[in-house]
Amino acid sequence: MADQYAHSGDDKRPTDIPAIRWEEPPEGPVLVLLDQTRLPAEEVERVCTDASALVEAIRSLAVRGAPLLGIAGAYGVALAAARGFDVEEAAAALAGARPTAVNLAVGVRRAQSAHETALAKGGDVRQAAAAALAAARQLHREDAEASGRMAEHGVALLDELLPSGGHRILTHCNTGSLVSGGEGTAFAVALAAHRAGRLRRLWVDETRPLLQGARLTAYEAARSGMAYTLLTDNAAGSLFAAGEVDAVLIGADRITADGSVANKVGSYPLAVLARYHHVPFIVVAPVTTVDLDTPDGASVEVEQRPGHEVTEVTAPQVPVVGSEAGGGIPVAPLGTQAYNPAFDVTPPELVTAIVTEEGVVSPVTAEALAQVCARSRGVTAG
Amino acid sequence: MADQYAHSGDDKRPTDIPAIRWEEPPEGPVLVLLDQTRLPAEEVERVCTDASALVEAIRSLAVRGAPLLGIAGAYGVALAAARGFDVEEAAAALAGARPTAVNLAVGVRRAQSAHETALAKGGDVRQAAAAALAAARQLHREDAEASGRMAEHGVALLDELLPSGGHRILTHCNTGSLVSGGEGTAFAVALAAHRAGRLRRLWVDETRPLLQGARLTAYEAARSGMAYTLLTDNAAGSLFAAGEVDAVLIGADRITADGSVANKVGSYPLAVLARYHHVPFIVVAPVTTVDLDTPDGASVEVEQRPGHEVTEVTAPQVPVVGSEAGGGIPVAPLGTQAYNPAFDVTPPELVTAIVTEEGVVSPVTAEALAQVCARSRGVTAG
Repeated sequence: MADQYAHSGDDKRPTDIPAIRWEEPPEGPVLVLLDQTRLPAEEVERVCTDASALVEAIRSLAVRGAPLLGIAGAYGVALAAARGFDVEEAAAALAGARPTAVNLAVGVRRAQSAHETALAKGGDVRQAAAAALAAARQLHREDAEASGRMAEHGVALLDELLPSGGHRILTHCNTGSLVSGGEGTAFAVALAAHRAGRLRRLWVDETRPLLQGARLTAYEAARSGMAYTLLTDNAAGSLFAAGEVDAVLIGADRITADGSVANKVGSYPLAVLARYHHVPFIVVAPVTTVDLDTPDGASVEVEQRPGHEVTEVTAPQVPVVGSEAGGGIPVAPLGTQAYNPAFDVTPPELVTAIVTEEGVVSPVTAEALAQVCARSRGVTAG
Repeated sequence: MADQYAHSGDDKRPTDIPAIRWEEPPEGPVLVLLDQTRLPAEEVERVCTDASALVEAIRSLAVRGAPLLGIAGAYGVALAAARGFDVEEAAAALAGARPTAVNLAVGVRRAQSAHETALAKGGDVRQAAAAALAAARQLHREDAEASGRMAEHGVALLDELLPSGGHRILTHCNTGSLVSGGEGTAFAVALAAHRAGRLRRLWVDETRPLLQGARLTAYEAARSGMAYTLLTDNAAGSLFAAGEVDAVLIGADRITADGSVANKVGSYPLAVLARYHHVPFIVVAPVTTVDLDTPDGASVEVEQRPGHEVTEVTAPQVPVVGSEAGGGIPVAPLGTQAYNPAFDVTPPELVTAIVTEEGVVSPVTAEALAQVCARSRGVTAG
């Protein structure tokens, strides 16, 4: 079950509403999410009291962004445990909510393992639930800390590649605090550069069909006081041609053993353009994004989403007028099929560097990736 | 002044409503346009009784598509002449309505020249008006005939490049009968291939921000019975990577003397992707699109359109709810600036071939282009 608490989006001050938080009201613990489908027009919270509400929130992208999915998955297990649901069932449902971002299953597994371990050591259900929650909180903290470290490594890399400063950075999708326990991944690097006075402009790909760039990244950039400009995804090419892009910064949903990067659809075309124009293409992601069990790009399961996301336009403020599949307004002729992959895959040879909290991987090779995984706490070691 | 005659879009039979036609009701001649901003949901006609109504229709993209703009421009001059307006003023207003497609000014000039020549030969205003109309009709006929010839040359080229048939063609923007006095340019080639049983699938880029692909090309493809699939512009990369694109077919708004091609924004990224994947990138355009007076890509004036086209979503059926600049629903935070170039430029080295009614130019060189211009009737000879 999920309730909503709506806030008016009218006042323009930065919001302190976090993307996700655990609360413990008298009636029982809840997971409170900032509903990202309603941004930027409205800041609405969704309150989840069980794993199935969270699964629905994940599937509808009310909560999204790879690192945040890991945190949500872990809290979802803790929620099920605290409220007396079947933890194994909840874990399976959560891990299966969406297939591409590896972090989701990783987060679920961490909380589930802590739960199992506590029970195996003779703990009762309350202690096991507490262990699951502690694991989720730990993951949440680690992610926030990882954001800070990625930002440091990323800014240093940019300064090395672009010593004159005044960086004009192109981003795709959304990678700020809305994907994170902290300030995010790629956006956190841009934000750190901005605070250091080294960001001239953030170019924001709108990121069709769900407009995470136009709705979420623009929102975060505006709140941060950055100089930013929105563009349709197809306009980036002319920016490269005009010499207006100094670097591309993107996040990742899964990095395979060979260094292939699965990220929001539209990332691969940017990598090809960046290569053609000799512009650095930088991926920023925590080590939890690396999946040594997936060998290469071809092995990544790319989520295919419903065609109506493409054939209809939606906006939170648009009243649902017809009986259309998605509740939006059709823009294409009725009966139009749409190809709607949520992600695409960029091969390692087109990636200049992968910035993780453990350091920068450049060039991107299987060996270097394995090393950075080993350097981390070993939770994701292959 | 413009009136509207609305038809319900409910019945699915192919419409016979042409993109543009000249009519002569008792009260005076009119230019009747199929309002392309209302498609595919509604087939609405706009009736223009003077050049300023036509200028407004051109600026708002009720009538668009490079060859069609030439035809509209010519008829606009004829309309002004027939109704007793200042022809020179009308011609200037029409030619300046939008800057990038060269065909517009070419069409205006043809009708205006015919008008001037008639007057210079001692004709009265009626005869001069009749001469302008005759020139417009001639241009209209030539364009229809050019479509047929481009289709033939284009299909032959595809058969040569892709001998096994079963072509999977990717298109961008809209290039069918809605841009043309005939069946169009790039789409006319795809249509001819479809009729010959050689088209396996038409991949249709939706073409943000105004969705000419989703609204217009999908509409034309559906009417023609093609197997077509819509995609967001940023998803094309993954189709190339999956080997699902056999050729790219696009139109053009202006081809410069050196063979650079200005076309709807998003064309250039497709050219770079096509080159990276060794896929033919074919431009289909009548010789009237070649502008030998513009030396190269950098010299093309690329129209910049209002940012609200990007920051708001619109659909004909969406009621205007606020006082937003464009009358649409904002999706980005208020105050967001947007970069909104209507076109981009592809350099000749990325173009496999340019298919004109006079034949195929491949490779694309200044000499070959000049030759094909000379072969045509000489109206556009530099």
